[in-house]
Amino acid sequence: MTPSPRQSTAPLPAFEPAALQRILDGEQAPVRRRVREILSRPSFRYLPPDASIDDQRAAASAWCRELADEGIGALILPAEYGGRNDYAAFTAAFETIAFHDISLTIKFTVQFGLWAGSILLLGREEHHRRYLRDIGSFALPGCFALTESGHGSNARELETVARYEPATGQFIVNSPNFAAGKNYIGNLVRDGRGATVFAQLETADGARHGVHALVVPLRDESGNVLPGVRIEDNGPKMGENGVDNGRVWFDNVRVDRDALLDRFGGVAADGTYNSPIKSAGARFFAIISALVGGRISIAAAGVSAAKSGLAIAVRYGERRRQFRTPGFEGETPLLQYPTHQRRLMPLLANAYAADFALKYLVRRRVETQDGRDPAGTREVELLAASFKAWATWNTTRTLQTCREACGGEGYISANRLPALKADTDIFTTFEGDNTVLMLWVGRNLLAVTEKAGGTDDRAATRAGASHTGAAGSSHGFLFEERERAILAEIRADLARLSGEGVDAQETASRQQMRLLRLAHAHVERVVLQQFGAAVARVENDDPALGEVLRALHELCTLTLLEEQRGWFLERGLLTPEESRALPERVEVLCARVTPRAVALVNAFGIPAQCLASPIALP
Amino acid sequence: MTPSPRQSTAPLPAFEPAALQRILDGEQAPVRRRVREILSRPSFRYLPPDASIDDQRAAASAWCRELADEGIGALILPAEYGGRNDYAAFTAAFETIAFHDISLTIKFTVQFGLWAGSILLLGREEHHRRYLRDIGSFALPGCFALTESGHGSNARELETVARYEPATGQFIVNSPNFAAGKNYIGNLVRDGRGATVFAQLETADGARHGVHALVVPLRDESGNVLPGVRIEDNGPKMGENGVDNGRVWFDNVRVDRDALLDRFGGVAADGTYNSPIKSAGARFFAIISALVGGRISIAAAGVSAAKSGLAIAVRYGERRRQFRTPGFEGETPLLQYPTHQRRLMPLLANAYAADFALKYLVRRRVETQDGRDPAGTREVELLAASFKAWATWNTTRTLQTCREACGGEGYISANRLPALKADTDIFTTFEGDNTVLMLWVGRNLLAVTEKAGGTDDRAATRAGASHTGAAGSSHGFLFEERERAILAEIRADLARLSGEGVDAQETASRQQMRLLRLAHAHVERVVLQQFGAAVARVENDDPALGEVLRALHELCTLTLLEEQRGWFLERGLLTPEESRALPERVEVLCARVTPRAVALVNAFGIPAQCLASPIALP
Repeated sequence: MTPSPRQSTAPLPAFEPAALQRILDGEQAPVRRRVREILSRPSFRYLPPDASIDDQRAAASAWCRELADEGIGALILPAEYGGRNDYAAFTAAFETIAFHDISLTIKFTVQFGLWAGSILLLGREEHHRRYLRDIGSFALPGCFALTESGHGSNARELETVARYEPATGQFIVNSPNFAAGKNYIGNLVRDGRGATVFAQLETADGARHGVHALVVPLRDESGNVLPGVRIEDNGPKMGENGVDNGRVWFDNVRVDRDALLDRFGGVAADGTYNSPIKSAGARFFAIISALVGGRISIAAAGVSAAKSGLAIAVRYGERRRQFRTPGFEGETPLLQYPTHQRRLMPLLANAYAADFALKYLVRRRVETQDGRDPAGTREVELLAASFKAWATWNTTRTLQTCREACGGEGYISANRLPALKADTDIFTTFEGDNTVLMLWVGRNLLAVTEKAGGTDDRAATRAGASHTGAAGSSHGFLFEERERAILAEIRADLARLSGEGVDAQETASRQQMRLLRLAHAHVERVVLQQFGAAVARVENDDPALGEVLRALHELCTLTLLEEQRGWFLERGLLTPEESRALPERVEVLCARVTPRAVALVNAFGIPAQCLASPIALP
Repeated sequence: MTPSPRQSTAPLPAFEPAALQRILDGEQAPVRRRVREILSRPSFRYLPPDASIDDQRAAASAWCRELADEGIGALILPAEYGGRNDYAAFTAAFETIAFHDISLTIKFTVQFGLWAGSILLLGREEHHRRYLRDIGSFALPGCFALTESGHGSNARELETVARYEPATGQFIVNSPNFAAGKNYIGNLVRDGRGATVFAQLETADGARHGVHALVVPLRDESGNVLPGVRIEDNGPKMGENGVDNGRVWFDNVRVDRDALLDRFGGVAADGTYNSPIKSAGARFFAIISALVGGRISIAAAGVSAAKSGLAIAVRYGERRRQFRTPGFEGETPLLQYPTHQRRLMPLLANAYAADFALKYLVRRRVETQDGRDPAGTREVELLAASFKAWATWNTTRTLQTCREACGGEGYISANRLPALKADTDIFTTFEGDNTVLMLWVGRNLLAVTEKAGGTDDRAATRAGASHTGAAGSSHGFLFEERERAILAEIRADLARLSGEGVDAQETASRQQMRLLRLAHAHVERVVLQQFGAAVARVENDDPALGEVLRALHELCTLTLLEEQRGWFLERGLLTPEESRALPERVEVLCARVTPRAVALVNAFGIPAQCLASPIALP
C-alpha cells in the first residue's frame, strides 16, 4: 500500500439530494418516477402490521394487479405482448417497487420475472403467444416450480418426472414421492393458475434427458384446483406473509406435448428427443439460467431494502438525542457519537457501492443478451451469483445494524424495521443459498483460469473486469492482488496435494473454504472497481458530488481493508504501520460523511408512503 | 504465540450426552429438572405461530402463573415470602424457561426478576412484607417502569417527577410531558396491577435528589386502570408479542410516603431528604443496580435461545442431504461439508463458552451478595454488562447463521427459528443498549486502572480475573496481552492528547472506539479464561469429556484469534506464518468436533416440547 498523504478532515461539500438522486435514477429515471407515483397512491397504503395472512395476501395480489394494469409487469415482455422488451427498465421498476412491501416485491418477481421470464427464455414463439400477454396483465397468475422439498440447492437431481407417451402425445407429470413435492412456491396457494414445472424428462424408452421445464395448469378459470394437483399452504413464515407460498404435488397429471418449453431440448411426436445443446451439463445450466434474472432481482430488492433501513436509522440518529457532551445544547444527537457513525456510515457507503455495482451488472446482462457481447454470458452468471450473495448478506447485516441503532423503536412494527428484516431474511437463501452459490462461483473462477492454461492468474480477474473503466483508487490494486493471490494459492495447493497423492475427495473438500474466499475476493473487487468507475464519471460531471461519492468509495474500501487486514498483513501487502492506521482512518472518514448522511439517504428517493416509519418521517 | 505442536486430527472420544448434561446442569440440576418437567406438561404446548396477539398474551400470562404456582418465581425471594432466597437456583430456572417461549421468559423476568427484584433490592423489610408474597405467587402482577420515550440509555435524566408534599405526607408522581411517558414496559397492558416507577425525587423546597423508585398502583383488584394513570399499548412488535408492552403516563398520581423504596434514599415526614450514600453519582448507580440481575437474566435467556437454534440447525444438518460427493451413499449430509461445519461449529463452541462463563458470573454475583466478597461488586457489574453484550450479540449471530443453515425450512414458522430470531433480536437493546454498555465498561476499566495509580496495566485485567483458576491455554496469554495493550494504548493516547492541548470533548470522542475495543477484549478474555478453567475441572474428573470440551475451547479461542489476527499481527504477537496457519487449524478443529455435534446439542437437555421444531425432532 502506498503510504497515503495526510488524510483530509475537511467538510464534504453540501449538495442537493435531488441532484444526487438524478445520478442514482440514471437512464431509468422516467420509469422510476412513474413507479414512485403509483406506489404513492392511496391504494398502496400499507395494511396495519397485525393484518391477517389472508388480508396480506389479498393486498399483495391487488397491488400486483394494479402494477400490471399500469404496464409495469410487462416491461420485460416483447412489444407484441404489451411490453417494451426492456430488461433494464423492468429491473429499475422492480428496484423501486422494493421500497414498498417486500411481499408485493416478491410476488411481482415471481409473476413477471420468473413465470413470464421462464416462458420467455425457455419457450418458443408459440409459447410466448399463448401465455405472455395474459401473464403480463396478471390475468394469468402463475408460479416457478423448481425447488422440491428433497432437492433445493441440488436442483439437478430433482425427482419430479415428465414422461412422454407417444400414443397420446402427452407428457405425464408426476411427483413420485412426498419429497418430490415442489416447495416454497410463491403465487401458488391463493392465485396460481399455472406453473413452469421443472421435471426430469423421460422418453418412452425409459431414457432420462435431464431437467426440463413444462407449463402445467394448476387451476381452472374459476380457481378450482385441477384433478391430480395437490396444493398445501406453507403456513406462517418469518416474513413475506403476503406471498402465498406452498407445496404442490402432481399425481400423473397429463399435459399436451407443446406444454414443454423446448428451446433447449424437445421431444418429437414419435418420442424422439432432440436438443441444440449436446452436453447434458451445459443443457442443465442453459435451462437453469432462468434463475440469473431472478438472482439479479433478489439482489436489487436487497439493495432497496437496505436503503430503506438506512433512511430510517440515519434520520432517527440525527433526531434522537441521548446524554450530554460538550458542544451541544441539550442532549447530543446519536449520529454525533463516533460509535454510532462507525456502525452506520460504512453501511451507507456499501449501499452506494451496491447501487452502482447493480447498475453495472444490469448493463452487462443487457449487453450479453442483445448481441453486443454474447461471450460475456458466463461472466454475467458468475457476477449475478456472487453479487446476489454479497448484496443480500450486506442487506441482512445492514438491517440488523439499523434495528439495533434505533433501539426499542426499531423493534416496534409500526416503525417498519421489523418487516424489512423479516421479509428480506430469506434473500440469502432465495434463488440459491449464498454459500452454495459462492462455492459454485469459486469453482468456476478456478475453471476459467485452468482453461486459460493455468499460467495467468489474471484471467479470473479479467473475467469480471472487462468493462472496468477508471478504477480510480490506489487501494483497488490490493483487492485485485488478493483475488490473484488466493487463486494462485489454490492452484499451488492442488498441485501439491496431487503430488502427495491425496485423493480427489479430500482435495476437493480441503479447497472449499478457499474457493469461498476466492468468490468473496472476486465480487468485492468487482463491486469496488465498478463503484470507483462510476464515481470517476461523476467527478467529471459534478466535482462536488464527485467528492462526496469519492469519500464513500474510500470508506467502503478502507472498511473492507480494515476487516481483511490480517490477510494483507500475512502476505506483506500491508505494513503493520499502515494496518494500525486503518481504524482511525475509517473513523475520520465516518466523521466526514456523517454531516451529509441525511442528504445521502434522501437521495435514495424513497416515497414517504413507502418508508412509512414514524421515527423517520419529517 | 508458541508454535503449536502438530495439530491432532484424531477423532474425539464418543460420549453419552447425559453425562455431559450432568456437567452443564451442575449444582442446579434439581431445579433444572423440575422446570423441564413443568415445561413438558400439555398445558405448556405452544400456540400455533399465527395465534393472535391477545391469545399469545393470555398464554404467556397463564404459563407465568403456573410457574409461580410451582414456586419457581419465588425462588429468588426470602423464605418468609414463600421463596428460597436462592439467586443461583432462580437463574438456572430462568435459563431453563428460556428453552420455552421467549415471551413467557421475558414476562417471567419482568414479574420476578425486576418487579420483585427491585422491591427486594431497593425497599426495606416493610416493603418486602407488603408485596413480595403476592408478587411471587403472581397474585400481584407488576412492572419495572424505568425507560421513558425520551430517555432510554440516559436514564439519569429521565423526566418523571415524584414531588413530596409534607402537608399530605404524599408523593405526587407526574409525567410532565409526552416523552416522559414510560415506554416498552412489559406486563403493563394486560396484567400489571402496580409498578416500580423511577422518578426524579423532589422535596417541597424544590430541591431535586436524583432518580428514586416508588411503588405506584396502576389498576384496582378488578383490573380497572386507576385515575391519573394512562396506559397505551405498544402494539405489534418484531417478536415477543406475548409480552404486553406499553407506555404509561402519570397525571399527578398521589401515593403515600411509604411508597418510596427508600433503602438508598428517603424523605422524612417533614420533607427532609436523607440517604446513606452521599455522592449523587454513587446513589444513582446503587439504585440502578437493580438492572444488574436483569442483565444477567437477558444474557442467560440469550444463551438458551442460541442453544435451541443450534440444536435445530445441527440436527437438520446431520439429516439433510444435498449433492453427491465420493464416500457417501446417496447424497451427502450438509454437516459433512467443510463450509457448513465452519458456519456452525465455532458457534456451538461459543454456546459452551457462554454457558460456563455465565455460571462463573452467577457464582461471582452470589459471592458479592452473600457477604463473601462484597468488594467484588463493581467487577460483577462490569462483567454483567459486558457479558450481556457479548452473549446477546453472539445469540443474534448464532440464530442468523442457524436460520441460513436451514435454508427455506429455517424460514417456516413451524420450525421455530423465526420466533427464536424475532423474539431475541431485542436482547441487544434490553437492559441497556449493548454499545452503550460496552462504552460504560470501557470507561470503567480505564478508571479502575487510573485509581490503581495508572502504572499497572494489569489492574484492569485483574478486575475480572480474580477467580480465574487454571486458564489452561497458551493462547489465553494473547488475550490477556490484548486487553493490557489496548489499555496502555488508550492511556498513551490520553497523555499525548493532553500534552498537545486537545480539548476534553475531542479527547473523549477520539477514545470511544478504543474504549469499545477494550470492553470487547475484556469480556472475551474473561469468557475464554472461565471456559478454560471449567474445562480443566472436567479434565480432572472425566478425561474423555474433558478432551471434547478442550477441543471446543480451542475452537473458540482459535476462531477469535483468526477474526482478530490483524490486531495481533500489527503488534508482532503473531508471526505471519502463525497467522496464515489459523484458517486451516480452525477447519481441522471444526472437522474434529462435527462427529460429536449432535451429542453436544443433545447434552443441552432441551425438552422436545420446547424445541418443537419438526426438522429437529427424531
